[in-house]
Amino acid sequence: MRKNTLTRKNNGYIIVLIYFKTGKEVDIMAICFSKIVTEMKASELTPILALTARPDIISFAGGLPAEETFPLQELKETALQVMEENGKEALQYGLAAGDKELRGAIADRMNGLYGHFGMRTLAADDMMIVTGSQQGLDIIGRIFLDKGDVVLVEKPSYLGAIGAFDFEGANYVEVPMDKEGMIPDELEKILQTTERVKFIYVIPNFQNPTGICWSKERREKIMEIVSRYEIPVVEDNPYGELRMEGEALPPLLSMDPKHLVIHSGSFSKVLAPGMRLAWVVANEKILSKMTLVKSATDLHTSSLIQREAAMYMKKYNLSAHIKENCKLYKHRRDVMLDALKTNLPEYIQWTHPEGGLFLWITLPADWDARELLMMAIDKKVAFVPGDCFFPVSGKRNYFRLNFSYNNDERIKEGIRRLGETIKTYAETKK
Amino acid sequence: MRKNTLTRKNNGYIIVLIYFKTGKEVDIMAICFSKIVTEMKASELTPILALTARPDIISFAGGLPAEETFPLQELKETALQVMEENGKEALQYGLAAGDKELRGAIADRMNGLYGHFGMRTLAADDMMIVTGSQQGLDIIGRIFLDKGDVVLVEKPSYLGAIGAFDFEGANYVEVPMDKEGMIPDELEKILQTTERVKFIYVIPNFQNPTGICWSKERREKIMEIVSRYEIPVVEDNPYGELRMEGEALPPLLSMDPKHLVIHSGSFSKVLAPGMRLAWVVANEKILSKMTLVKSATDLHTSSLIQREAAMYMKKYNLSAHIKENCKLYKHRRDVMLDALKTNLPEYIQWTHPEGGLFLWITLPADWDARELLMMAIDKKVAFVPGDCFFPVSGKRNYFRLNFSYNNDERIKEGIRRLGETIKTYAETKK
Repeated sequence: MRKNTLTRKNNGYIIVLIYFKTGKEVDIMAICFSKIVTEMKASELTPILALTARPDIISFAGGLPAEETFPLQELKETALQVMEENGKEALQYGLAAGDKELRGAIADRMNGLYGHFGMRTLAADDMMIVTGSQQGLDIIGRIFLDKGDVVLVEKPSYLGAIGAFDFEGANYVEVPMDKEGMIPDELEKILQTTERVKFIYVIPNFQNPTGICWSKERREKIMEIVSRYEIPVVEDNPYGELRMEGEALPPLLSMDPKHLVIHSGSFSKVLAPGMRLAWVVANEKILSKMTLVKSATDLHTSSLIQREAAMYMKKYNLSAHIKENCKLYKHRRDVMLDALKTNLPEYIQWTHPEGGLFLWITLPADWDARELLMMAIDKKVAFVPGDCFFPVSGKRNYFRLNFSYNNDERIKEGIRRLGETIKTYAETKK
Repeated sequence: MRKNTLTRKNNGYIIVLIYFKTGKEVDIMAICFSKIVTEMKASELTPILALTARPDIISFAGGLPAEETFPLQELKETALQVMEENGKEALQYGLAAGDKELRGAIADRMNGLYGHFGMRTLAADDMMIVTGSQQGLDIIGRIFLDKGDVVLVEKPSYLGAIGAFDFEGANYVEVPMDKEGMIPDELEKILQTTERVKFIYVIPNFQNPTGICWSKERREKIMEIVSRYEIPVVEDNPYGELRMEGEALPPLLSMDPKHLVIHSGSFSKVLAPGMRLAWVVANEKILSKMTLVKSATDLHTSSLIQREAAMYMKKYNLSAHIKENCKLYKHRRDVMLDALKTNLPEYIQWTHPEGGLFLWITLPADWDARELLMMAIDKKVAFVPGDCFFPVSGKRNYFRLNFSYNNDERIKEGIRRLGETIKTYAETKK
């Protein structure tokens, strides 16, 4: 008894209640967690998707770039040269905002890519470096969101962003989209009637999960509304440069007279995700808050990795490298599109993305992609069921396929298995 | 007017209030920040300490390891070998908990160091990898703390930990310490009378900022209380292996039958801080929550850096490397202690640490180390004033000196300047 008496004194009434309720020894460790973490559970998908790491399962679930694209030799040379020329600096503590040389190189590159669209000229101090774009999203959530605040997202939207904002207790409103992107009238309607909107989160280029790329006109209309309502917009752009066909389109950042856009770019999909390296462009006020959180979060991103990226950009041609990657991805996309056409019944629909890593499949309205996934795993193929991408509506008749990671043979065989699974599932629906 | 009307509809009454109050255009960006970030300001020390980066100023302010200790050649070889043997894996996405090989290597090393003290045998799954120990502290704050929850800290305690916990709205109680460490009776008194204590945060080895190392008896007494009250303890141990004299002492983790200790270790002070690599040992329940937050925070720590650390530990003898570092640090500590003896008046006191990176200076009770710092910067020497390390009492008559970073000449000259500053300041106090 003595132990529980002491514990009670120490931690207050909550523990007393639980103690009497269970009549068992108090599980002090569970009680001590913060409210939001207590409520938060690992997705029930986690163990299912963990299965997909089995080599006998062909997984289209991850968002992994093709390992064939990693410039091993170049990065080896780069690592050597960094150690030889800047070893001590690369191994020492650095600035919270990130290595200035790297930021300058990214600014120059973005000016080259987007300056002709009218983007304001960027310099090193217009951005900060983060440990992968996930960290940027997490920090954005932390600087803007109090519990119950609202984030507007595309319907559907990226589950990793939702995962980050969930930790701040965000609520979501899903803004309908069509094949040209977010629908302006719908956004305006929601802005007029929704309180506590802190920001809009969008992925205009080859969206995750749908692969949709917003049209130029749509971008302009949405930014006109954004400027009028003065709402910050998070433009998440990990896939923008992975364009396989069609013309490059201006980023929202280039249509932003009021500096409301927080633009996130990443090396993960164009160089190597294992580096965990990304950047965020934003106005000074937002950057100063983000840098404050960054300091408390991990002080700064690895100086070594930052130096290596800066050196890589100096020594090699990143744009040429990305262009090569896109050839491979276009090929794999086409292999997957062909295989879908061959193996899936005509009442199943899918997107035809001009870039990025994903296809989005629409099933008949009464189908459930989670049920389908369980069957698919039996047939040794996997995908991400769509409901994870709808934080409010949780729609069940969609799923996402990744086409970048697997080679031709695995894509063909995987889609064949998927076709079989769908036929079997369709039987149960008759 | 239209813009503000729209804005009002969108963001609710707070904005209306501010709009009418200022009569100026609403600063929507400022209003949108979360409560905690709105209140949070960069320390007023930041611009002052930024000055200390000027090469003419000898700074004892940072906690930087000596760059002479970085094993450049070995890390170059390591980077090469990782690229050659494991390049694709090192550049691809990895597990949120961290690279299993690295975790295994750390577990083995800790078993070797602490097994004979009775620490339970650790395996890879008893820990997770974090992007520097700062990230571990941040994640610990996030899993445990709701606004207003209490963290017990040593008096004084590490400002970086306080900075991380501040973002969760923590309150603090400072537990008095003497030269043997935290005082058990004081801890027990506080535990008996304080509600909402979520955990105790301590640095038993060569504490930051004091350099104090807890005695073995003190560790046992504190852990007896911890076990009785079942309060989680965060044992932050970045400096434990930087022992220059005396016998190694058992970590709290080895006196922890109830698995209440969350033990944080780091490569920053023994290998290279620019890698941003650390680890956290904890019970399964805590680790599963921490891993959940880690996924939302930055997915995982750089696979490349993790592989390099694992490879370094396999190829080289980290313990021998640390032993060499300690020789240099002992020498520098002694140079600083000698210089203090020569240059400082006898009524100033300082600690004589057996390890770590810091000395702690006690000024007469009515002196103010912030005032002293302003004078010191005029004389081109810098330190961290002590109030940052007292989250509640904000005591002003202390400051922290780092002895690891500067070479002998700079230490001697810096302490000479410090002595002059103190003499000048003493005049103003007469």
